[in-house]
Amino acid sequence: MTERFSGLQLRSTLDQSGTLTLDLAWTTLSSPGPDEVVVQVEATPINPSDLAVLLGSATGPVNLDDLQPVGSEKWPTIVAKVPATALPSMRDRIGVPITPGAEGAGVVVCAGTHAQHLLGRRVAMRGGGMYAQYRMVNIRDCVALPDGTSAADGASMFINPLTALGFLETLKAERHEGIVHLAAASNLGRMLNRICLADSIPLVNVVRKAEQARILRDAGARYVLDSSDQHFEEGLVEALYETKATLAFDPIGGGAQASQVLAAMETAASRDVKGYNRYGTDVFKQLYIYGTLDLAPTVLDRWVGFAWSIGGWLLTHRLRQLGPDGEAKLLKRVSRELTTTFASQYTAALGLRNVLQPDAIRAYGRKATGGKYLITPQG
Amino acid sequence: MTERFSGLQLRSTLDQSGTLTLDLAWTTLSSPGPDEVVVQVEATPINPSDLAVLLGSATGPVNLDDLQPVGSEKWPTIVAKVPATALPSMRDRIGVPITPGAEGAGVVVCAGTHAQHLLGRRVAMRGGGMYAQYRMVNIRDCVALPDGTSAADGASMFINPLTALGFLETLKAERHEGIVHLAAASNLGRMLNRICLADSIPLVNVVRKAEQARILRDAGARYVLDSSDQHFEEGLVEALYETKATLAFDPIGGGAQASQVLAAMETAASRDVKGYNRYGTDVFKQLYIYGTLDLAPTVLDRWVGFAWSIGGWLLTHRLRQLGPDGEAKLLKRVSRELTTTFASQYTAALGLRNVLQPDAIRAYGRKATGGKYLITPQG
Repeated sequence: MTERFSGLQLRSTLDQSGTLTLDLAWTTLSSPGPDEVVVQVEATPINPSDLAVLLGSATGPVNLDDLQPVGSEKWPTIVAKVPATALPSMRDRIGVPITPGAEGAGVVVCAGTHAQHLLGRRVAMRGGGMYAQYRMVNIRDCVALPDGTSAADGASMFINPLTALGFLETLKAERHEGIVHLAAASNLGRMLNRICLADSIPLVNVVRKAEQARILRDAGARYVLDSSDQHFEEGLVEALYETKATLAFDPIGGGAQASQVLAAMETAASRDVKGYNRYGTDVFKQLYIYGTLDLAPTVLDRWVGFAWSIGGWLLTHRLRQLGPDGEAKLLKRVSRELTTTFASQYTAALGLRNVLQPDAIRAYGRKATGGKYLITPQG
Repeated sequence: MTERFSGLQLRSTLDQSGTLTLDLAWTTLSSPGPDEVVVQVEATPINPSDLAVLLGSATGPVNLDDLQPVGSEKWPTIVAKVPATALPSMRDRIGVPITPGAEGAGVVVCAGTHAQHLLGRRVAMRGGGMYAQYRMVNIRDCVALPDGTSAADGASMFINPLTALGFLETLKAERHEGIVHLAAASNLGRMLNRICLADSIPLVNVVRKAEQARILRDAGARYVLDSSDQHFEEGLVEALYETKATLAFDPIGGGAQASQVLAAMETAASRDVKGYNRYGTDVFKQLYIYGTLDLAPTVLDRWVGFAWSIGGWLLTHRLRQLGPDGEAKLLKRVSRELTTTFASQYTAALGLRNVLQPDAIRAYGRKATGGKYLITPQG
């Protein structure tokens, strides 16, 4: 085990003045410990949560129209300014190079004494720092992929699949009968649609464009509401009345749509109630914000009674509640249905150096629905 | 049991066109059933929740500057317009006279066969329709007051005391270590302060004026923050850091203060955390909105991570969770400490006819902190 692996690693570093630098470092890994493996990274996705790290933070990303390329072709480097208002919340990352990339897939090229069974296998892995040519991981953070699985198919095995399955665990634990999903044509949304169809769980998909609605309907979705449609609100109430869905997941965060959904739930719930109750119905309505696609304030501008809640939903917290066994059970299902229920689609694949091109950053930085990018670090 | 009791009853009636009529009706009660008593109402408070019924709804009260007196001295009547935007949420009360008054105290003047032990006793009671000279109630909705208790002392035995104690039950059930209370100089807030002092529960009181802060400090409150103070936010973070209070109760609803409190909790929670976590701390922060003093939208405009929740808090729902035994236990304490911990203070007492004077409506309709009115229907 004398071989040492060296390769490129993408870094995002913020300084005191609010300048964010994206560059590549040449790093050499130490020898793996007994429970560790070295993985040659073949594919790693750019998730919205990765973008938040790469480009500043969820609340203070750099201005995509003001990216300065200052490096060479071989060593591309981008500098950009983080808004001053966002700096205080990022003080703990000032001066600390962050290595983005929450998950990925690759081949085990070196394995510790307890991990020899993985040598030569293709694995899916997680833990940050995946935007690199080589990554050392503990075996508890990787899963051997079924034979014949491509790296692209294995690259997004954790975040989206566990999030979608996590939604269903929340549904069960908090005793709701159906789900509303906003920005539902995303990779995650299409995955959730497939799971809910398979498990017969009522799902109300809310999208913002007719073409997104079509994608979901073509995939068999029964309830698809387009918020750009003039009859959106009536349609939403009708779907909520039919499905009794009282649990919503919202990756957008900003704006008034969360409030609109809760109000529609209340209208649906009150339809069969006789008489006047000045406090609203006692049907409990829950909306979870699990992303921040829109950084504008969340505005609650409708009367929804008193039986409601809006809160944050974070995969890490939910997995902790499930415990290792609960999580292992979910991952088993993901592994079994990796190319069907849990398949991801990518707009394009980018080599590590391409990730640092201004045009590419603007493309993946837009976080457009359906626009998901894969990094292939060996390319 | 041939005696029939007749008297005045205040009514609030909305018609199709959005006209709200407040008037008095002469009503005659039937004979009480076996488990019922007739109470001569001596005192009944105007709670914020009563105001919502009296003047329209929580979201669509009438304009206080446009009250038309149309009755006589003996039969005062007020008409006013409910905003058209608020009408849809009130459709179920159109054409139905509502009789406000959630709680009160008085003397039992007639009792059913199973209720003879209450005859001649002064009782506290609840159930709506208390703005009347006589009220029939089931014995399960009334509590005999300790000998020597005045009607004014017994009039507010349910809503505020059970709400304040309900906050503590929520604290225990949801495992928080301290409470933040907004608009904390209200009758309810001063009561909560006394309970928390007695039970050694950390309480952070937030008020909007220096004089309100003084009232609470004079009552022994340790943490009092005045939001009009220029160092309010730092002070709040400091108090939250010391108390570890992660549960807030907000009777205001509208505006950005809910968001400000959650953000201050997150800042306090992150103070001792090392390193950068882009998702915020995992300290769970809860704010409950239990009133709608401000009808403006609730605006969540700060980054508070993902471990947070904002929701409605309604006494009725919480009492249902506690069950009859749990509630009885709380009421026992209230009865024991009625003139100390659970004492209420009133700005003025109004006869039933005075309640329908435009000047009086404007005074009690303002919902100013500390301005609480008592109705004495026999006066």
